[in-house]
Amino acid sequence: MNRSVIRYILGYVLKIESILLLPSCLVALIYHEQAGWYHLLTAILCGILGILLTLKKPQSFVFYLKEGSVATALSWIVMSLFGALPFWLSGEIPSFTNALFETISGFTTTGASILSDVEALSYCNLFWRSFTHWIGGMGVLVFLLAIVPLSGGSQINLMRAESPGPSVGKLVPKSKSTARLLYLIYLGMTIIEILFLLAGGMNLFESLTISFGTAGTGGFGIVNSSIGGYSPYVQWVVAIFMILFGVNFNAYYYIIYRKWKKALSMEEVRTYFIIIILAVGIIFLNIVNTTNSALDALRHASFQVATLITSTGYSTVDFNLWSQTAKTVLVLLMFVGACAGSTGGGIKVSRIIILVKTIKKELTSYIHPKSIQKIKIDGKPVEHDVVRATNVYFVTFMIVFAVSVFVISFDGKDLVTNFTAVLATINNMGPGLEGVGPTQNFGAFSGISKYVLMFDMIAGRLELFPLLILFHPAIWKELFTRHKITAKGK
Amino acid sequence: MNRSVIRYILGYVLKIESILLLPSCLVALIYHEQAGWYHLLTAILCGILGILLTLKKPQSFVFYLKEGSVATALSWIVMSLFGALPFWLSGEIPSFTNALFETISGFTTTGASILSDVEALSYCNLFWRSFTHWIGGMGVLVFLLAIVPLSGGSQINLMRAESPGPSVGKLVPKSKSTARLLYLIYLGMTIIEILFLLAGGMNLFESLTISFGTAGTGGFGIVNSSIGGYSPYVQWVVAIFMILFGVNFNAYYYIIYRKWKKALSMEEVRTYFIIIILAVGIIFLNIVNTTNSALDALRHASFQVATLITSTGYSTVDFNLWSQTAKTVLVLLMFVGACAGSTGGGIKVSRIIILVKTIKKELTSYIHPKSIQKIKIDGKPVEHDVVRATNVYFVTFMIVFAVSVFVISFDGKDLVTNFTAVLATINNMGPGLEGVGPTQNFGAFSGISKYVLMFDMIAGRLELFPLLILFHPAIWKELFTRHKITAKGK
Repeated sequence: MNRSVIRYILGYVLKIESILLLPSCLVALIYHEQAGWYHLLTAILCGILGILLTLKKPQSFVFYLKEGSVATALSWIVMSLFGALPFWLSGEIPSFTNALFETISGFTTTGASILSDVEALSYCNLFWRSFTHWIGGMGVLVFLLAIVPLSGGSQINLMRAESPGPSVGKLVPKSKSTARLLYLIYLGMTIIEILFLLAGGMNLFESLTISFGTAGTGGFGIVNSSIGGYSPYVQWVVAIFMILFGVNFNAYYYIIYRKWKKALSMEEVRTYFIIIILAVGIIFLNIVNTTNSALDALRHASFQVATLITSTGYSTVDFNLWSQTAKTVLVLLMFVGACAGSTGGGIKVSRIIILVKTIKKELTSYIHPKSIQKIKIDGKPVEHDVVRATNVYFVTFMIVFAVSVFVISFDGKDLVTNFTAVLATINNMGPGLEGVGPTQNFGAFSGISKYVLMFDMIAGRLELFPLLILFHPAIWKELFTRHKITAKGK
Repeated sequence: MNRSVIRYILGYVLKIESILLLPSCLVALIYHEQAGWYHLLTAILCGILGILLTLKKPQSFVFYLKEGSVATALSWIVMSLFGALPFWLSGEIPSFTNALFETISGFTTTGASILSDVEALSYCNLFWRSFTHWIGGMGVLVFLLAIVPLSGGSQINLMRAESPGPSVGKLVPKSKSTARLLYLIYLGMTIIEILFLLAGGMNLFESLTISFGTAGTGGFGIVNSSIGGYSPYVQWVVAIFMILFGVNFNAYYYIIYRKWKKALSMEEVRTYFIIIILAVGIIFLNIVNTTNSALDALRHASFQVATLITSTGYSTVDFNLWSQTAKTVLVLLMFVGACAGSTGGGIKVSRIIILVKTIKKELTSYIHPKSIQKIKIDGKPVEHDVVRATNVYFVTFMIVFAVSVFVISFDGKDLVTNFTAVLATINNMGPGLEGVGPTQNFGAFSGISKYVLMFDMIAGRLELFPLLILFHPAIWKELFTRHKITAKGK
């Protein structure tokens, strides 16, 4: 394994984190907050470590899927460990486990919180908390690719490990320019949302933090009522932008290049919108009798569907009180998730499409055993390897899921709480139902359960395998044994 | 499609059912029950219809997987429709939907009941209810293969559609003699259990019905307390036989032919016993403080683990009252299920093994991308097709699961009830948790929900695809269009 390139990437990630910590120092300066010193301290620490780790350039920049996966998983862990320092050092989250949970929840855009009173945090910590969503949304390594002179043409393995979804529709050539383009779209859309929120009478701090949470489909609010206390206008803006950030970014690429037909014909995006419309319709009919007006019901239904299918996790009402049908629809949406190539979590709409088509194909093979068919998406055949990977992903997802529910069940909480806690973390959702419902938090879990849920959050964000291989003994052996890099890359 | 061979098989199934209805007529005779007349009536009806359908021999006995699947699915539906008549005609289950639910639950060895008072049934109906478990356990088409002169060498497609599990370890040549051997083992073990129960002081009626429920891993009891009211000795006997009927029958084949080494080295059977021991251990430690003695705790833990992993569904205690950890273990066991090639339900241990090995293989492929590996079970490589089918099965299972939970959620029951109701039916388990817990029943569901759950029971018993393809439009077109049989069999 090419260990020096992994070291180099980790160093670069720390340098980037050091710079990303500066805005919250500025916030501390504006609000005259002592806690800002800890942000500055962490930034300096990251900076020094980052410089030390990148002092020596690696002999070779050649790296493979293995190195890409390990580098990605380690980057996210290291980033989170340092990102937790401001919360912990400032004493605003006294337990390091809790601080780490909150940070991982931020970077992975989960939005699950251990805080019972968000409003007690200082402004700079609130800002950093929401900013982690924005950083994690598009992925820090994609950012790294956009700005760092990594040569060798194997950067795709970094991107592959961090980008959500099966590699369907690789039409944007994955390279430095793609990474830049993605970040530009991401930045542009975030700015537009900030402007819309400012127009609705929000102050700059509110519109920045809420937009970060929307863009990364994260879900950390800055007040205890999440989005429930804001005006209907703000709720509509946030709902619409959540849905927009859940769209496959390839669609925006097409729109920018005026390939309207291609954008409109994307099967995944179409399916995504159909699911949203159906879910909103069912829930609307289900709750319309319990709200003041039909428009209120539509707003609440749309907001909750948007927040759950994109795995954001903002809330405007306590849907724990809704009917069983509405709750079941919401739980199913949590599983489905947003589009691949978006900032949203979950299994992803394109995977669901592939899975459903696999079943159809299996049925047809019973009827015409000799026919050879290929699964198609957007009219193009899906490679066998993608189909296989999708099946394996799904199976792995379910097994990680089951094991997690089992381990956290030792805390003695009820089944729905445990089940939806794991669902909410592995899908990078945020709140679940019952004990982890929108008005509750994850603080009551034991330390072990919290680490399991942190694992689930990172596993969900990195799509399982990059994190899972860190636990493979062969990787440990390679990481801690000194040996020459061979041409084979083994 | 070769429709005439399907007609012929359906006719034969009805003739068999006609004969299988006679024992309960005898029971009615012994206990002087009027309800027996309806058993006789149904038997005569089945007999006449069966003879009419088999009057004309099919031109060709050639048939493929398609015909095998359709014949199997239709056989199970027809068998259930007629099997429900005695309950309905006798007025003891006044609603036909409920009678059909009870019968399908019987044949599929689910054991989920809509009855709140089992003890109100007449002896002959109780006998028939338990006897359906025994018939369904080994499969009526396997029985048909054992006695019917179907020629053409394509019977394997019937057996494949009805036998549980992926076709791993096809060492017993699938043929008439295999079917006979399977039934002999099945019959022999059932008789041994009956003798053990008689030795424990049970009367003949009790030991017959309870043994039928154990052998088929069905779970219909004949008293409201299920097995809870019997002596500890009886509970131990039933627990041990449930576990034995959950073992891959190939193991018994080896034992009969004294191939001890082969029997002991079966990976699936070993894993099955390891899972049982672990689960009993965890639950024992969890409940030992709440019972009178450690032996009681061991008995309750063993019985509940046995009943859930084999998907039998007998109960001795209300495990709804146990701790969350114990309940989570039990829910996970429901998913796992028994061995392939046993009478038990669930996903099956061998599939779990294949799935876990698939994940391992995927991880290794990250580390050594160029290595070509094959998944092995019992030291032999598993064919690619079996691995693929296992993945597809799992995915289909989950999607049928999700859709079912969604549809029955309209009844307004809580999530745990809905979730475990579907789990209990699709895995042919019987009771679930909360509203469908061991002390509850399925009677409170709406008609639509009951039909969804009936679908799940048959889908689970026939391993999804044989039933699912009945809903494929191409099959309907072929079933109701007259055309010549071509050599291609299309």
